[in-house]
Amino acid sequence: MEFLTGIREKEVLDSVTQSMDGEIVKVNGAVHTIRHMGDVAFIILRRRDGLLQCVYEAGITDFDLKQLREAACVEVEGVVRCEERAPWGIELRLKKVHILSEPSEPMPLAISKWKLNTSLEAKLNMRSISLRNIRERAKFRIQEGIVRGFRDFLYEQGFTEIHTPKIGARGAEGGSNLFRLDYFHHPAVLAQSPQFYKQMMVGVFDRVFETGPVFRAEKHNTKRHLNEYTSLDFEMGYIDSFEDIMAMETGFLQYTMRLLASEYGRELKLLDISLPHVERIPTVRFDRAKELAAEKYGHKIRNPYDLEPEEEVLIGRFFQEEYESDFVFVTHYPSKKRPFYAMDDPADPKFTLSFDLLYKGMEITTGGQRIHEYPMLLKKLAARGMTEDGMEQYLNTFKHGMPPHGGLGIGLERLTMKLVGEENVRETTLFPRDLGRLEP
Amino acid sequence: MEFLTGIREKEVLDSVTQSMDGEIVKVNGAVHTIRHMGDVAFIILRRRDGLLQCVYEAGITDFDLKQLREAACVEVEGVVRCEERAPWGIELRLKKVHILSEPSEPMPLAISKWKLNTSLEAKLNMRSISLRNIRERAKFRIQEGIVRGFRDFLYEQGFTEIHTPKIGARGAEGGSNLFRLDYFHHPAVLAQSPQFYKQMMVGVFDRVFETGPVFRAEKHNTKRHLNEYTSLDFEMGYIDSFEDIMAMETGFLQYTMRLLASEYGRELKLLDISLPHVERIPTVRFDRAKELAAEKYGHKIRNPYDLEPEEEVLIGRFFQEEYESDFVFVTHYPSKKRPFYAMDDPADPKFTLSFDLLYKGMEITTGGQRIHEYPMLLKKLAARGMTEDGMEQYLNTFKHGMPPHGGLGIGLERLTMKLVGEENVRETTLFPRDLGRLEP
Repeated sequence: MEFLTGIREKEVLDSVTQSMDGEIVKVNGAVHTIRHMGDVAFIILRRRDGLLQCVYEAGITDFDLKQLREAACVEVEGVVRCEERAPWGIELRLKKVHILSEPSEPMPLAISKWKLNTSLEAKLNMRSISLRNIRERAKFRIQEGIVRGFRDFLYEQGFTEIHTPKIGARGAEGGSNLFRLDYFHHPAVLAQSPQFYKQMMVGVFDRVFETGPVFRAEKHNTKRHLNEYTSLDFEMGYIDSFEDIMAMETGFLQYTMRLLASEYGRELKLLDISLPHVERIPTVRFDRAKELAAEKYGHKIRNPYDLEPEEEVLIGRFFQEEYESDFVFVTHYPSKKRPFYAMDDPADPKFTLSFDLLYKGMEITTGGQRIHEYPMLLKKLAARGMTEDGMEQYLNTFKHGMPPHGGLGIGLERLTMKLVGEENVRETTLFPRDLGRLEP
Repeated sequence: MEFLTGIREKEVLDSVTQSMDGEIVKVNGAVHTIRHMGDVAFIILRRRDGLLQCVYEAGITDFDLKQLREAACVEVEGVVRCEERAPWGIELRLKKVHILSEPSEPMPLAISKWKLNTSLEAKLNMRSISLRNIRERAKFRIQEGIVRGFRDFLYEQGFTEIHTPKIGARGAEGGSNLFRLDYFHHPAVLAQSPQFYKQMMVGVFDRVFETGPVFRAEKHNTKRHLNEYTSLDFEMGYIDSFEDIMAMETGFLQYTMRLLASEYGRELKLLDISLPHVERIPTVRFDRAKELAAEKYGHKIRNPYDLEPEEEVLIGRFFQEEYESDFVFVTHYPSKKRPFYAMDDPADPKFTLSFDLLYKGMEITTGGQRIHEYPMLLKKLAARGMTEDGMEQYLNTFKHGMPPHGGLGIGLERLTMKLVGEENVRETTLFPRDLGRLEP
């Protein structure tokens, strides 16, 4: 009988470091580009940890270079040499080259260029090719770091991870932006948010989080909207005030910036990213924020109950200029702009105990305290003329005791976009879904 | 200007330990149950880290006990005492009790019982209440540990986490089990699996994984099927053989059992779980596995190209009895039972370089090597009479070079079910979706 006993020790190395100077090693990778220099050629391998410069020398490397094409996958053997001019200070003097697989057609994009000179549209149409550019793919490594930081920080803070259904009988926010489907002859919708479920689970685990897809059938065609995106959601019980939620988010950002600095240094360098300062994040009331932007930049307040995107930009600019902060919490959003479950401010019920987090002038988080008492929930539903239909399970949870609680949702693609300095959220979405795009 | 500077130091403690013996502390929690004993009462608080026994003493505790109802949320102050007979060896002698919120109605389930004597149907109908039973909720803490182990192990092994769309133009596996929806007047489907996307991303990151929902419109009504479940998927390039994938899965299981033992000890104890041995997992060919079950248990082989659920049970039993292993890799599934992208065995193309992992007689993983060469993919598509429609982006990826690769998908709820010893996959699904259930 044969047995599997765990990951296999391989002759082929996972990574090559400067400490291996002089050693003969085997590595694999994709031929990113070949630069011919007479009897010598540089074969740049693309590997998951970065580019590796390999030196082909006629007469020394036991291989016919004419056999090798860009985009082939190879296994090579060579001597490690420290070489300042090579990427990450290492090159490999090749002894042998073994072709693992070959492309069938030439590359449609010059992926080995530092910057892909390609339209966003073309990049998205050929996503699996354009992401082979190492700066394009680095954005998604940064994105990984953000999600990883979110989860690891929350595990540390006693949160439990949950997985809630994406198909349901009704949406958490109601309204028109629901994708509808037929579920074995029952009408069903795709989840706009895990809101109801995460609140229901606060009564079980006290603190919960989820990282998963949400679906919005919004007919927006802007640089900041997607119809499917990844939401980083948490919900926490036993809060003293909604500031506990903002404090937790600040803690997440601090943790994540440290994680990115320590584990994603190569990607930060490739993309030339300076991580933002998150030691202290200013907080300002919604109405005051509007005034500040109006006063300083002469912006006319058109709608006192809403923040227009241009106002968000101005508020972001204000706090950058006055407090050197890329981030600002805007608090106390008007009640009429928040869902029924938002906790109104007892001091002035026209406003809620809620917030948005703006990053470089764009909303990346919406959060706040929720109503936790059953009678208050019923009252608010009634005041809005809403029925309890389809919300029985959600409401029952509150009948049977719930702690004061609140939470937030962070748009992963937007946070990534702002962090890596992109202007269109599609740049930081692996396979975007928008009004016109359902493929690839 | 006010600032948020990170998580707040609180007077209320996150956890109480035996080392605090004699200290006065503040904690919060939900009143799980109250046991009256004359002038003394035990108030058991349910907190995220477990139950905490609090002792109410008339004349000492500054509170009127009649005010307190089960399911209220409270903040209490008291003296920590080591007490062997209390849960986790600690109790709190109460000085003060402060009510944070109160229930509106009595509990519909006796959640404080050791075992909920309630039908599965009732438990699912009142999910946010039934999960307040500490053994019910413990299953989902174990589930968290599994997902966490999966991700942490794969990060360590150089995998990149990806987020792929759940709405698409067509399914990866094709066929009839697709949920269909209208996407801005275009026909769309929900993803059955991230298969195409994760393969496309192997050409970018070499190794990728995703943990997310998948959707199957199967009309099965069994204890092992769900119409939406969480799939743990990975895909890895530069494999020498499909055994590398099984070796990686074995490594994941080893890592995860260690993680559960070290971080989820309370839950393992609550559920009385002995973790399975995963030091070595036997592997057997599909055809041989069928023979072994037939020989030992007198099972008649009806269909040589498929494993029936009863055969999986017998094969599981065989390897438990003969090799003391709860797990067994069954390899070389027949080609006609695998999707077009599966790599046929060059030694006998009627079979594939693929596997299922059985755990206690049930399939919890399907995986294998994939075709990585464009001409071979085209040939296989043609041989199956399939068109390239809607697969252009997937196929283009292979035109431009792909390493030998393979991967797998693990059903999270099934793995959890088998680990915690349940018989119905709904027991280990937070909010199951099946033929008859779309709520809560």
